[in-house]
Order: sequence, then C-alpha cells, then structure tokens
Amino acid sequence: MNLAQVARLLARFAGLLTLAQVPPLVFALTEADHPVLSPVTGFVASMVVGVTVASLLWLAGRRRSGEMFRKEAIAVAGLSWFLAGFLAAIPFLWSGLLRHPIDAVFEAISGLTTCGGTVLGSGANPSLADTPRSLLLWRALTQWIGGIGIVLVFVALLPAMGVTGRNLLSSESAGVGTDSFQPRAIEKARLVASLYFVLTTLCALLLVAAGGFGWFDAVCHAFTAVSTGGYSTRGSIAEFGSLGGEIVLTVFMFLGGASFAVIATNWRAGWRCPLILIRSGEFRLYALLTGAVVATVCLVLLGQGTPLPTALRLASFNGVSVLTSTGYATADFQAWPTLALLVLFCAMFVGGCSGSTAGGMKQVRLLVTLKLIAYTVRHFVRPKSVERLKLDGEVLPATVISSILTVVLLWLVCVVLGAMVVACDDRLNFVAALATSASMQGSTGPALTLVEPASAANALQHGAAAATWAGTPNIGPLGGFGDLRPWTKLVLALQMVLGRLELLTVLALFAPSLWRR
Amino acid sequence: MNLAQVARLLARFAGLLTLAQVPPLVFALTEADHPVLSPVTGFVASMVVGVTVASLLWLAGRRRSGEMFRKEAIAVAGLSWFLAGFLAAIPFLWSGLLRHPIDAVFEAISGLTTCGGTVLGSGANPSLADTPRSLLLWRALTQWIGGIGIVLVFVALLPAMGVTGRNLLSSESAGVGTDSFQPRAIEKARLVASLYFVLTTLCALLLVAAGGFGWFDAVCHAFTAVSTGGYSTRGSIAEFGSLGGEIVLTVFMFLGGASFAVIATNWRAGWRCPLILIRSGEFRLYALLTGAVVATVCLVLLGQGTPLPTALRLASFNGVSVLTSTGYATADFQAWPTLALLVLFCAMFVGGCSGSTAGGMKQVRLLVTLKLIAYTVRHFVRPKSVERLKLDGEVLPATVISSILTVVLLWLVCVVLGAMVVACDDRLNFVAALATSASMQGSTGPALTLVEPASAANALQHGAAAATWAGTPNIGPLGGFGDLRPWTKLVLALQMVLGRLELLTVLALFAPSLWRR
Repeated sequence: MNLAQVARLLARFAGLLTLAQVPPLVFALTEADHPVLSPVTGFVASMVVGVTVASLLWLAGRRRSGEMFRKEAIAVAGLSWFLAGFLAAIPFLWSGLLRHPIDAVFEAISGLTTCGGTVLGSGANPSLADTPRSLLLWRALTQWIGGIGIVLVFVALLPAMGVTGRNLLSSESAGVGTDSFQPRAIEKARLVASLYFVLTTLCALLLVAAGGFGWFDAVCHAFTAVSTGGYSTRGSIAEFGSLGGEIVLTVFMFLGGASFAVIATNWRAGWRCPLILIRSGEFRLYALLTGAVVATVCLVLLGQGTPLPTALRLASFNGVSVLTSTGYATADFQAWPTLALLVLFCAMFVGGCSGSTAGGMKQVRLLVTLKLIAYTVRHFVRPKSVERLKLDGEVLPATVISSILTVVLLWLVCVVLGAMVVACDDRLNFVAALATSASMQGSTGPALTLVEPASAANALQHGAAAATWAGTPNIGPLGGFGDLRPWTKLVLALQMVLGRLELLTVLALFAPSLWRR
Repeated sequence: MNLAQVARLLARFAGLLTLAQVPPLVFALTEADHPVLSPVTGFVASMVVGVTVASLLWLAGRRRSGEMFRKEAIAVAGLSWFLAGFLAAIPFLWSGLLRHPIDAVFEAISGLTTCGGTVLGSGANPSLADTPRSLLLWRALTQWIGGIGIVLVFVALLPAMGVTGRNLLSSESAGVGTDSFQPRAIEKARLVASLYFVLTTLCALLLVAAGGFGWFDAVCHAFTAVSTGGYSTRGSIAEFGSLGGEIVLTVFMFLGGASFAVIATNWRAGWRCPLILIRSGEFRLYALLTGAVVATVCLVLLGQGTPLPTALRLASFNGVSVLTSTGYATADFQAWPTLALLVLFCAMFVGGCSGSTAGGMKQVRLLVTLKLIAYTVRHFVRPKSVERLKLDGEVLPATVISSILTVVLLWLVCVVLGAMVVACDDRLNFVAALATSASMQGSTGPALTLVEPASAANALQHGAAAATWAGTPNIGPLGGFGDLRPWTKLVLALQMVLGRLELLTVLALFAPSLWRR
C-alpha cells in the first residue's frame, strides 16, 4: 500500500470539500443575523479545519512519487467518505445547529452518501423551518457532491484501477488494462460531470417554472433530486403544494436513478441517446419495476377509497422517491396498508441502476439474480441443455455471476445484522429495525415504523402525519432519527457508507492484507 | 415423461397412506362415542377413497413397463405431496372436525410437510382439547410419515435418479451413476428408516420416563418431535409442566434437525458415530447457530428481568423449536422484544441440516453462502490469490456454487412474493405477512404478529398468551391460522410444499417441458 499516495489524494478531497463551503459561506454572510445560531462561524471554523487537514495530509504524502494501483484506489474510495463525513459535519456542529457531535456526523454522512435520513426536527434538534438557509444549502450541497462523487468512483476511479470489471458488476476484472484506459476514464468522468451539471440546472429551472418553488428551494431541490439524496428544505414536499413541481422532481429522481455511465457513453448519439438507454437490460428492468411499484401502490390506495388522481399522484411521487432511494415524501406512507409497505420495503433493497446516484443493491444485480433463477429452473428440468447466461448480449462468466450473487446475499446479511444491532434499542419494533437498516444501507432516507390504526386512516384521508404505535420514535418519512441513541446513529452512519460503496470496498478496509506493503 | 410409471408410484403412495389410517381407526373404535363428531366414519370414508384412488392410478399405470428416470422422479416427488395432502384431509373433513374443505387440506398438508401450522382452535374450528384422540393421533401420524418421507426423497429417491448431486446440495449432478447406485440408495433408505424408528421409540419412552406425559401424549409428541413437525395434543407444551419432558423434546428436535444422511452413513461406526457427525461442516454450523440463537434469546429475556433458569428454559426450548422448524412453544414468543423476534425470524429461514426432517433453506446453504462471502471479500482485496472453495474437504465447482446461491435467493424471492399475497388480506400487518410466509415455506408452523405492549409485559412475566395488536388474527405460537381467508390458506399450503421440496422440484412441475415425452 502506497500510503503517501493515499494521503495526497485524501488531501485533495479535503481541499475540494473546503472549497465547496464558499457558496454557503457567502450565502450566510448575506443572511440576517440569527438570534442563536452562527452559520458564518460554523463555515469559517470548518474551512480552517479543512485547510489544516488537507495541508497535513499533503505534507504526509509529499515525500514519495505517486503510483496508484488497485489497493490505493480501494483505500481512497473507502476512507474519503469517512473523512468527508467528519469535515462536512463541522458547520452543523460549530454553527450551534446540532449540539451532539454524533448528530452532526450522522447528518453529514447521510448527506454525502445521499441517504437523506435527518436528525433535524426530532430529538432535541431544531426543525427544518428553524434552520438557517445557508445550512440548508450546505445540506443540499453535501448530497450534490456525494451524488457526483459516487458516480465518478464507480464509473471512472474503480474501473480504471481494475477494482471493478466491465458493467461495474463485480470485483472480477482483468486488472488495469491498456494504456488508453486512464485517459478514457478521465474523458468519461468529464462527460458524466457535465451531464450531471446540465441535469441539475435543468431541474432547478423547471422547478421554478412549475411554480410553488422559489429560486432557493428550486436550487436546493435540484441538488437533492438529481443526486437522489432527498434532503428537502421543508418537512414534506406536499407543503409546496405544486403538482408541476412534484412531476418535475419525479422525472429527475427517475433520471438520477438511471445509469449515468450508459447515458454518458452515448452522449454523442444525440437525439438517439434515450433509445440507446432502452437497449440496456438494466434500464428496462428499472423502468418496469418503477411502473410495477407505482401501479401496486396506486391499486392499494384505490382499495382504501382514495380517489384515482390522488392515488396516482401519491403512488408515483413516493414510489419513485423510495425506489430511486431519494427519500422525499408527500405523505406519511408508513401509514399505508401492509402490501404497499412491503412493496416500498423491497424497493429500498433494490434501488436504481448501477453507475447512477441511486443507492440500493442496484437493478443489474436483481436482473442477474432473476436471470439465474429462471436459468436454474430450466436447467433443473432439462439438465443436459447447454445455455449461457447473457447480459446485454455478452456472456457472463461463472466467476462474475457468483461475485454478483455474493454481493446480493452479503447485502441481505448486512441488513439483517444491522437490524439486530438497531433492535438492541428496544423502543424500535420489528418493522422499524428492519426498515431502518434497509433504508440506511440502501441510501433511501426515511424508514418505516408502525402507526396507530386510527391515525393511519386519518393520515390516508387528510395527508396528516400518523401517530406512531405506542409512542415509539417516528423514523418515517415525516419523522427523523434524532430520537435514536448515539451509538445507533454511529452504526447507521457506518451502514450508509457500507451500502453507498456497495459493501466490498468498505469491508476491504478492515482486511489487514489491504494495508500490507 | 413416463406417466404410467408416475401413476403406478403414486398408487403405491395412496395405498401406503390408506394403510397408515388403520392405527387411528382402531383407536377410534376403542374411543367413547363423541356427541357430534364421528372419527370412525371419517377414517372409513377416507380409506374407501384412498383405495379407490390407488386402484384407479394402478389401472392407469398398468399397461407399460416401468422405466424411471429423472423426470419421473421429479413428478413423483412433487405430485405425491399434493395427492397425500388431499387424501389425508378426508378424516378431518368427514369426521365433522373441520367444516371447510380448505381448512382440512391446510391441516393435512401442514401435517405431511411437517410444517405444523394449525387451523384448530381458531376461526370457527374446535380447539385441540375438543378434538377426539384418534384424530390427534392422525395429525401426529401425518407428520411422522411426512418426516420420513422427505428424508427418503432427499437421501434416496432424488440422488438415485440423478436429480440432486452429492451432498444433496444442488441440481448439478453427473446424472444417474453406476449400476450399484440404486441398491446403495435402497440400503441407505433402510438405514435411515430404522434410525428414524429407533429415535421415535426412544423419544416416546424417555417422555414417559420424564413424567408429565401419558403414553398417548408421549407417542404423539415422539411422532412430531423427531419429524420436527410440531403438532401437539395441547395448545402449549408448557401445559404438561414437565421440565424433563421439555429437555427430552429439545434433544430430539435437535436430532431431528441433524442430517439423517450423515448419521445413517456412519451408522456402522458404532460409538464413534457422533464424532463423525462433528466432522461435517454443516453439523458444526448447525450446533453453533443453535447455541447462538439460544444465547441471544436468553440474553434478551434476561434483559427483560426474567430469572436465569426461566430465561434459559424458555430460550432453549423455543429457540431450538423454531430453528429446527418444529414449532412447539412453551410461551407466546411473539410477545418477546424485537431482537428476539428478529433472531427467531431469521431462524425460520435457515432451518436444520440437509437430509434431515427439518425445513428451511438448510444450514449447508447458509454455510456455502458464508464461505463464499468470506472468499469474495478476500479475493476483492487480493484478486490474484488462487483459492478454491471447499466443503468438508471437497472442492465445490462453480456451477454447484451458483446453483446453491440461486436456491437461497429463490427462497427469499418466494418468501417475499408469498408475503405480498398474504398481505392482500389487510388485517395482517407487515410483521405477520412476512413471518407467515417465512414460517410456512420453512415448515416452522407458528408465525409472528404484533401484540399489545401492555399484554406483552404480562405474557413475559406470567406466560400468558398476549393480545394481538388491534385485534388482528393471532397466528402466533399460541394461536392458529383458522381466521385467515380460504384463498390465503390455499396459497400457504402451496408454499409449504414448495418449501418442503426446496423449491425447484415443485417449480419444475409448472414447466411444460417436464411433461413432454
């Protein structure tokens, strides 16, 4: 392991994160003084720490010349998320917004991983309405940075370093390839970044045009929709009362969950670009599942007597929000009937496409799993048939298949273990423990808990927040994670990073052999 | 497909099942007349139908000489469970015990698959105390027959016909092997059957010796403990008030969940037989997990203020009961804290060893999954390392591994789909839907639903049954499935057979190519 090279790269990340605090600092300077909180102090302190950390890391890595290989790429990808999480937490803490350091770290890591679970508005923490705008902008910015960050890690960094193979699917790869690979990675990164920027700008403009959203809200929501992050400036998107805005957000959440890698590769195809997307099996499954989730939830809501337009509006916005792991809500969907909850719970596991900003274990892994199940049943009936498993026309080797299935199973094992740890706080019931773990690992944001049956009916009819069962913490879409124990929040923050990097990269950090020379 | 051969074999099954009704019929003749029910009529009617069906099937299959291959083995293994389920239901229906045909089929299939979920004592159905003893004996007998049946299918029938490979692990096999294979299968079947018989006799004798159990109860419980079935003659095993009896049942449930195949193979090793069991990686994981489940549940109960002896007694009996998919209960364990529920819920998925009477997806599949996860993480860190995955010293080929992982994933997919179907009855909450589906597919028996917090504390302290949340059907260990909708019960019965035959054999029945010539 070339630690010097790792330190130098981490120094760059720390520097970039410090630079990203300039816009919210400028915004804080123009804001009226807050009676209690001091965002300006928070940002200045954070930038001083950031510059110091960056310099120290740079000095530590100064000596040796930089050769970067697979191990270094893993270390940088894994560590940068933790480092960034601690640095990004400082404005929340030092401004006085969050009192507990663990709350600040939870909020920052939840932002950077585009998870979107918040501690604001729960526990002893102020609500979103009492949060200064500069800090709301910083929350949204962490998600925007985290969104492009994860796409670049999976589309450019890891493949270029031979960590992931083709299709970003598995750790099975032929290693660092031809000399032309690195320049191609840089070109791809540039394409993806410009696409991300264009989509964000477009989303902000359309939100303003749709009405209900001011410029500030439009920019913040553009940051958190395209990154499928889900931090809003209000408790519920329904507060904006804008059907147009909801449609725009739904479209951009869906685009954020589609593969930036595929879009970027076909960027030069011009108007034929969307057609090329349809050729990808992963995108087709993603579109199909989006339709299935929306249709099922819509039918369930219709069954409860909700009128069709309302049911469709609620099902499509909240369904797409959960499937793409964004986490916005226009209703307290944890009060919905069991079937809708099961569908949303499963959606938390799957998430969006590989190479997108969305979380979850990714559509492509589900696709391979389903293909393999169908193949195994066919093969069981006719064991002598010769058949090869293909994805988008390419044969999948057995090692790649077992690597994909392992990640799927590891995902489930981690969610279950996470739920068991969360359940040590016995205020959380069975549903809450499982859904919190799945939601954090899948970068969704809101979890599900049980609500009182009487208040569930009310929530369904009048869009109010439902009362949780037996007064347990409300970790649902209109609640927050502030009430949880500090150690639970730390475990959940770790789980966010684990899920964000699709497990292996983070688990590898705990392997002693990674750190050996 | 040689349908004649399939019909002839099914005729034999129908005949055997008819013969098995002689003991309960004799028992019914000695019983005092019941004011309403007529078990004698039930058994006689059932035997007449059984003989008729057997004769018709024999006639249908009479013409052609019998060659039996892989496809026929799959068809027989799959269809016999459904046929037996319908025949075994007749005594329950015709005696007047159960009014609804679907209830009778549910009870019979739940017996034959050793699931153990019951409709008695819930819905409009009589309780176990009001059920004539001859019918209680029949319930226990169905589980005993089903238990040895499934072991023989997996240890002798399917491997001999080239359906499963070595270690019963996968559908990947070299096909029907040498000529000596079939005689070996018959010898193995004989060994397993005698072991099963010895264990059952021993269990009954020890239960009587332990006190609290009369001869009738001892025999019935021996039938349902060794078969890990779980049908009892009372609502809760705690009613017998026998610590010795609970210990005996715990030991025999554990033995029932251990691999009969491994025990039978080493039968001639004499006193060294248990040592050979320990050499099997699957058995070691099984023993380890049993310890882990009992320890965790015990700690959770201690944390709730239960005294250590009580906690240990409750945790070991109910923990082993759920992990081995038996389903006996000495407490309303659905009222226990979340962590205990999560552990029991996971235990429903795993079940016992392959080649045992236990349900679930089997310990060996978990073992391979865990080995593969560890391998994948190591390989991710050092991709150039060459390593082969071994099980008990033998290398696992890639095709076998992916076949094993596919069954694990298919298991999860089926549980989730089952839960979604169950959830269409919106009286069942999130926990109830998931646990019912997992419990039926894993042959466990009792499911979990939410209980009122106040009654949970009471249940924990005084061993009473807890009140379910908002008056939903109690499908927990002290409840029953009688309140569910008829279509739900049908789906659950299908899921029991699906899980019992470890999915592929049942799914293959729906493949048109199985039925082609």
